[in-house]
Amino acid sequence: MNKIFRINMSNLTTKCESVPEEWAGLGGRGLTSTIVAAEVPPRCHPLGPNNKLVFAPGLLTGTPAAQSGRLSAGAKSPLTGTIKESNAGGTAAQQLARMGIKAIIIEGAPTEDKWYRLHITMDGITFEAADSLVGKQNFAIIDEMIDTFGPKIGVLSIGVPGEMRMCAANISVKDPDQKIRSHGRGGLGAVMGSKKIKCITIDDTGASKVPIADPDKFRAAAKIFAKSLLDHPVSGEGLPTYGTNILINILNEAGGLPTKNFRYGQCEHHEKISGETMHDTIVERGGKHKHGCHAGCIIQCSQVYVDRAGGYITSGFEYETIWGLGANAMIEDLDDIAKCDNLMDDIGIDSIEGAVLLATAMEAGVIPWGDGKECQRVLRDEIGKGTPLGRILGNGTGMVGTAYGLVRVPVVKNQGIPAYDPRSVKGIGITYATSTMGADHTAGYTIATNILKVGGYVDPLTKDGQVELSRNLQIATAAVDSTGMCVFIAFPALDIPESFTALIDLLNATYGLDLTADDVTELGKKILKIEHDFNTAAGFSKQDDRLPEFFSYEPIPPHNAVWDFTDEEIDEFWDF
Amino acid sequence: MNKIFRINMSNLTTKCESVPEEWAGLGGRGLTSTIVAAEVPPRCHPLGPNNKLVFAPGLLTGTPAAQSGRLSAGAKSPLTGTIKESNAGGTAAQQLARMGIKAIIIEGAPTEDKWYRLHITMDGITFEAADSLVGKQNFAIIDEMIDTFGPKIGVLSIGVPGEMRMCAANISVKDPDQKIRSHGRGGLGAVMGSKKIKCITIDDTGASKVPIADPDKFRAAAKIFAKSLLDHPVSGEGLPTYGTNILINILNEAGGLPTKNFRYGQCEHHEKISGETMHDTIVERGGKHKHGCHAGCIIQCSQVYVDRAGGYITSGFEYETIWGLGANAMIEDLDDIAKCDNLMDDIGIDSIEGAVLLATAMEAGVIPWGDGKECQRVLRDEIGKGTPLGRILGNGTGMVGTAYGLVRVPVVKNQGIPAYDPRSVKGIGITYATSTMGADHTAGYTIATNILKVGGYVDPLTKDGQVELSRNLQIATAAVDSTGMCVFIAFPALDIPESFTALIDLLNATYGLDLTADDVTELGKKILKIEHDFNTAAGFSKQDDRLPEFFSYEPIPPHNAVWDFTDEEIDEFWDF
Repeated sequence: MNKIFRINMSNLTTKCESVPEEWAGLGGRGLTSTIVAAEVPPRCHPLGPNNKLVFAPGLLTGTPAAQSGRLSAGAKSPLTGTIKESNAGGTAAQQLARMGIKAIIIEGAPTEDKWYRLHITMDGITFEAADSLVGKQNFAIIDEMIDTFGPKIGVLSIGVPGEMRMCAANISVKDPDQKIRSHGRGGLGAVMGSKKIKCITIDDTGASKVPIADPDKFRAAAKIFAKSLLDHPVSGEGLPTYGTNILINILNEAGGLPTKNFRYGQCEHHEKISGETMHDTIVERGGKHKHGCHAGCIIQCSQVYVDRAGGYITSGFEYETIWGLGANAMIEDLDDIAKCDNLMDDIGIDSIEGAVLLATAMEAGVIPWGDGKECQRVLRDEIGKGTPLGRILGNGTGMVGTAYGLVRVPVVKNQGIPAYDPRSVKGIGITYATSTMGADHTAGYTIATNILKVGGYVDPLTKDGQVELSRNLQIATAAVDSTGMCVFIAFPALDIPESFTALIDLLNATYGLDLTADDVTELGKKILKIEHDFNTAAGFSKQDDRLPEFFSYEPIPPHNAVWDFTDEEIDEFWDF
Repeated sequence: MNKIFRINMSNLTTKCESVPEEWAGLGGRGLTSTIVAAEVPPRCHPLGPNNKLVFAPGLLTGTPAAQSGRLSAGAKSPLTGTIKESNAGGTAAQQLARMGIKAIIIEGAPTEDKWYRLHITMDGITFEAADSLVGKQNFAIIDEMIDTFGPKIGVLSIGVPGEMRMCAANISVKDPDQKIRSHGRGGLGAVMGSKKIKCITIDDTGASKVPIADPDKFRAAAKIFAKSLLDHPVSGEGLPTYGTNILINILNEAGGLPTKNFRYGQCEHHEKISGETMHDTIVERGGKHKHGCHAGCIIQCSQVYVDRAGGYITSGFEYETIWGLGANAMIEDLDDIAKCDNLMDDIGIDSIEGAVLLATAMEAGVIPWGDGKECQRVLRDEIGKGTPLGRILGNGTGMVGTAYGLVRVPVVKNQGIPAYDPRSVKGIGITYATSTMGADHTAGYTIATNILKVGGYVDPLTKDGQVELSRNLQIATAAVDSTGMCVFIAFPALDIPESFTALIDLLNATYGLDLTADDVTELGKKILKIEHDFNTAAGFSKQDDRLPEFFSYEPIPPHNAVWDFTDEEIDEFWDF
């Protein structure tokens, strides 16, 4: 990976640059965040010409290492106003890596009202007219690209909410089954829309393998790494069998499953929406309960959820989406939830933000509690078409809260809080509060240690140790996000010493380096600090590292816990 | 004024407290800001139970001093997230002052969905059921209160947008002609709505005169003060003749009249909407071109604008509103603008935010440029009824910008920028950037010196001296806002030495004090710092003291000026 493409949408030029020395050791989030911090004015308007949208495969992406096929996207977020990194599976990351492309930097903005498709081949990047795609949603775009270029074409696209620059808009990535994975959080689809890029197609004909400096060492490490993934009970058994939705019953049991817009920590109908029920339903209907989001995935936490006739409804059907619609918005029918998930893929909005904002719309009285059919209509006909109501909803939970004058609005830095209640799982509350990305469970997934007892155990209901736990995990995650690895490699990495060693060996074997565990930690710290400095320059202060006020005075059953960290305790997070 | 009423909406109790020593020398903005800063948690949700809504007459309110009848309202603003003070004319301030009420602090929030009218008499404050008023707009409420209590009743009320807790909602105050003055900016109507108070009625039967410690000294000072108001060309001649709308032609000439959502600094149809045209139209139709917003006003900058048949359309028809609809939203017909102004009074939204957001909606393509009829429909049937489009618009310019993915969104701290372009009148840009209230021209009205050459002259197009000018004016204004005086007393105070001395003498004569000019300056500084500290604790940083990015790269004709202050230059503002 020795090329960086710079795409200027103001004058429709492209430039292929060699990789500067200081970016050579970076990939994925480490690279996208570094580029955004170096080149985007922190106070710029996220939808203006001075924001940049950066894509980068991870350091190991394109190699045969398991779980390494994720693509990082970065920009200043229109949803949060912070720096934002969002990574996704699909085919694009591995295609770009094999084409030797380390990063794509999209800058400027067209002044004319014309839309473009960027077409990436081994010959470079061209601007193709895409006005005929305007108004189309993602599945139609992918189908049309497959019809035009064949099934191997890589596709990144935005739906109508992205065109309309809504803050919940995501960027869709075609996966190996011609379905959709997403750069979900932070409204990066709106940034792509502001650049007037409806679609990016990747034809990797002529691309070669990613070079590996020490193939023998690589093979040995890859084997140990893969074995550790299969050996660990979470990545080797729980996730492949039940998907991430295994968490519904676990969080319900822990009293940390936010229900009815964060009113309760347990949901009466949890069995109807659980991973176990989902698994049995898929098996009974002839869907797939094991499925990967990219070539080389051996965890296979995804699935293909089908209807009674065996017809496709959705895939990549995640716990956070099912929680958001099932428990938090009180929808009891898993088929309705699956249809909403499919619609969110199609129109192209983040399915976490989408789920949280629908529950907030229920809080506002705009949608009846638990009405899955109305949620589908709203997604398709309001958000998907950009009606006034769709504009309110499609701009995220925070806007729904403001538009309807609500007080119980679960956001941090304007991003919807995901599927784990911070009062009853306090470590994740520290992550929500301090993450450079706004409320984001993946930034430092303390659920591992608070609930799943991976990497030790920190009692979720007491404050002790939570800041340190979140800090360590956020540092580690920033580093992992730079490798192109999926975040679930953390389960074996935290419990099986050889797993983490093998990950470092994979990096060393690929690049001929001698990195140590400390180097990886330092990389994680450096990335967090770069991101934090960007946010400070953008206007964020310690006072923004706070949870919504209602968590402090509204106890959540069954533990009747409140959010009780002092400001000083939270602010210790940044002491590193 | 020796009583403070504390109204607890959580348990529907009232408490009458004596004035604490440290608040004794405060009134108006000085008092409301001090109370909000002392009692409201800076990070609280503005619509939650921990925000407080505080009303306070000024230090001189209720005395016979000219221009002293303004009421201050304060709270944490749902629009900006900052501390907010907004003052208004009308009858309430003088009634409260004569009743000996120094402040009313409304705290808590009802848990039940029931609405209240607070009824204030010399016997205390009672909670009256107001569910029958729900859904009514301000003129209907005022009429009903007059029918019930007679024409002397004081009324503060909110329309439907206030009930619905929209961020542009204001608080209406009945004026001596049974029409409306407004606590306009910052969405304080939404705070009143969150407390479920639809209306406050004031029956001052039995109230006595405000005591004056040294009546002879007071009379002498009052005479000098009044004479200075009449002697100064702006307050004695310009404003009484043409109203504030005299500024259309002046700002157009200066190239600082933002036109078509801040694209141009001059407006081709300026003559159609100018103060001169308005004056002639009013005279020709038999309206009133001189009119005061409260008893004791001798500037009389208000007017009664009537239709061809002589029927009332609107009053308190201000330059900023006429600019916003006429130049910035390109409406050419002054009657349409007047009808919009009336509608904004009726539904109860800030007519500056309302005008700015309508132009932003035009930028978004939601309303055709210059379509005054459609603006009336949108105000009445969308914002006034809380439709989804109405929710977007009624929550202010910033929400319109986000909902429609716009980049050219003229807000500072999410408050719409008023009628003076910061690129071509640079002093006011410093005020917009640094004001503790978000974009607010009244916070430090540099137009006086930049354009009207009052208090000297600072060239509006160069950076030199603007920070100092804005600082001095913001300090002085914070002090003036504490007296209950209208901000236009600044014109003689800046140019006629005896005027400012007389103001201090009025304070000393009323309270038996020996304040000096330095004391007044210190008071202003202290108020600004209290407000700034609140904002810092709420999460605002220096980086929030910035104008929208587009002002820095979009030159405004005819001077082709851009906003070119460095961050360091702006931040010098707080060096005092």
